[in-house]
Amino acid sequence: MYSYQQLFQFTQEVFLNMGCPPEDAQLATEVLLEADLRGVDSHGVARLSGYVRLWEAGRINVKPAIKIIHERPGTATVDGDGGLGLVVAPRAMDIAIAKAGNVGTGWVSVCNSNHFGIAGYHAMKALVHDMIGMAMTNASPLVAPTFSTQRMLGTNPIAVAVPANRQPPFVADLATAAAANGKLEILQRKNKKAPIGWIQTASGGRTSNPHELKDGGALLPLGSNKTMGSHKGYALSAVVDIFSAVLSGANYGPWVPPFVSFLPVAENLVGKGIGHFFGAMSVDAFRPAEDFKAHMDNWIETFRNADVVKGKKAVLIPGDPERIMTAKRLKAGIPLLEPVERDLESLGKKFGVQL
Amino acid sequence: MYSYQQLFQFTQEVFLNMGCPPEDAQLATEVLLEADLRGVDSHGVARLSGYVRLWEAGRINVKPAIKIIHERPGTATVDGDGGLGLVVAPRAMDIAIAKAGNVGTGWVSVCNSNHFGIAGYHAMKALVHDMIGMAMTNASPLVAPTFSTQRMLGTNPIAVAVPANRQPPFVADLATAAAANGKLEILQRKNKKAPIGWIQTASGGRTSNPHELKDGGALLPLGSNKTMGSHKGYALSAVVDIFSAVLSGANYGPWVPPFVSFLPVAENLVGKGIGHFFGAMSVDAFRPAEDFKAHMDNWIETFRNADVVKGKKAVLIPGDPERIMTAKRLKAGIPLLEPVERDLESLGKKFGVQL
Repeated sequence: MYSYQQLFQFTQEVFLNMGCPPEDAQLATEVLLEADLRGVDSHGVARLSGYVRLWEAGRINVKPAIKIIHERPGTATVDGDGGLGLVVAPRAMDIAIAKAGNVGTGWVSVCNSNHFGIAGYHAMKALVHDMIGMAMTNASPLVAPTFSTQRMLGTNPIAVAVPANRQPPFVADLATAAAANGKLEILQRKNKKAPIGWIQTASGGRTSNPHELKDGGALLPLGSNKTMGSHKGYALSAVVDIFSAVLSGANYGPWVPPFVSFLPVAENLVGKGIGHFFGAMSVDAFRPAEDFKAHMDNWIETFRNADVVKGKKAVLIPGDPERIMTAKRLKAGIPLLEPVERDLESLGKKFGVQL
Repeated sequence: MYSYQQLFQFTQEVFLNMGCPPEDAQLATEVLLEADLRGVDSHGVARLSGYVRLWEAGRINVKPAIKIIHERPGTATVDGDGGLGLVVAPRAMDIAIAKAGNVGTGWVSVCNSNHFGIAGYHAMKALVHDMIGMAMTNASPLVAPTFSTQRMLGTNPIAVAVPANRQPPFVADLATAAAANGKLEILQRKNKKAPIGWIQTASGGRTSNPHELKDGGALLPLGSNKTMGSHKGYALSAVVDIFSAVLSGANYGPWVPPFVSFLPVAENLVGKGIGHFFGAMSVDAFRPAEDFKAHMDNWIETFRNADVVKGKKAVLIPGDPERIMTAKRLKAGIPLLEPVERDLESLGKKFGVQL
């Protein structure tokens, strides 16, 4: 078990040693560790060595000149200059928030970036401004469209954060695949079977083998199969890809560069880096914020108090499990799996940093 | 088989006889029949008698004074004055498009409206302006959140239309439930079983009985169960509800007024009518439209040419099936089920209009 402060210190030192400017190292650490706090272990310090390897492979620029390359009063396109997504994304979200302050909403599409950690962090930045925040990103192709055997889309998450008053905010943060790759990685490590409907074989057949992706298999879109609505998960994932990359000039679909350094970048790239999309909507551009937040309290309380299926504890509001996990881990510490611990220790040795 | 022109003439006459101003009758007819053309039969003329009954029950205002009640350069809140959603929605979408022309994007939340037909129609209005269009609406509560036995959300659709150049546009239009109610109605009429995962019983159990909703059952969110990601479908549906109604001051969750006139409106309403949400994003507020559309062509062609699972014909682009159906029905005519024909005939008698 590691304290938040301990992992923060360590991670920040690693980013500093990679050459990130101090405020970037701090920001990247904050974003990365938010995943560990919220219980999204696949997107936290477990990925730190992945970022390091991408940097070593020359695929991450630790001193990016992030800039707006196109804009209107309510929009911007941002070039992340190959920087850490952990740094590019919050800066782009700040631009969306500033624009929302000016004209009511702000929408920012980003190219030339890298993996941005958890989408929820960026969406939640809007909350203190009484704004609704949205964040999405495309990612390495692992998901097959309905009826396809080919990996064409990432698990392309969508996050939406909505402020309330007495109640904690509503924070949806979801992969548009049936299951995010992180869930699969856990099953792979434990050598456990995956539920039917998460993955398909190389020829598109049913499988519960969590290692199937190594043999040409693919993740399935939310909905799993056509009858259950996988064409909807595919469509949503496609929208994320288009907003993040076709709007910004990043790579899309099968061209999205892989997060792992041992896989080559595709040939004949159609854009720059990976893409993100951010939105901020000022609540009082629609309705006085106090009215809105009072009704959000009512919305949340009504859904939280809905009748429960026997054997289940409660109807959850999006963001509940992550908020409970954050409180718990801030107090009791953050558990790391042994391979992650070993990974961090070897990073510590490499950079002369104590875990 | 009825020709588009024949059904158009008839439907327009019915709306005129209800007292709609001529341009509203024409607009409502165009929106309603778009569903029949696109093959979304549940949302077309099959619903005409439903609108008539709601009007007879005093729940639809055929001469609404639609007005903006709150706005910023990039946003507006619209009060539909109890009008037909078929009329209120395209007017609100026009406001979003005008605002996108001014500041890059426009976002409009609507209260005090009624059922707006198919979401795709409204989103597609943006296309001729080289804009991305979005449309969503809340609807009568039929869907149970994950772990709940209670019907708290509508099938709350999301539509996104994206322009391309050589290729036809990308048009996603999806209910955030595992299956839209219209699909269930077809099974009910044919007395066929529903796939497991579309519906639950009153106590939250598995069922294939398409009539289960009459006994207190509920539709399930996209994802069907927690393991397959129903919490994601629930979260998306919740986002639609919040954007459409909590932002605008419409009714949300269990308070959304039913489409059918024989069900009473809930007590202690929390807002006015049902809510919609529209967005328009000018493509060239992000990137020159020609660049964007050339890359959309490439996106669409790449996905259309992806490897196909054996036994399936092709990987589809969202909007493909509806476009093919439209071409077919414009040529060969629109088939109507017998109960729908009888329904229209009795409407014809009521208003002295010939089908």
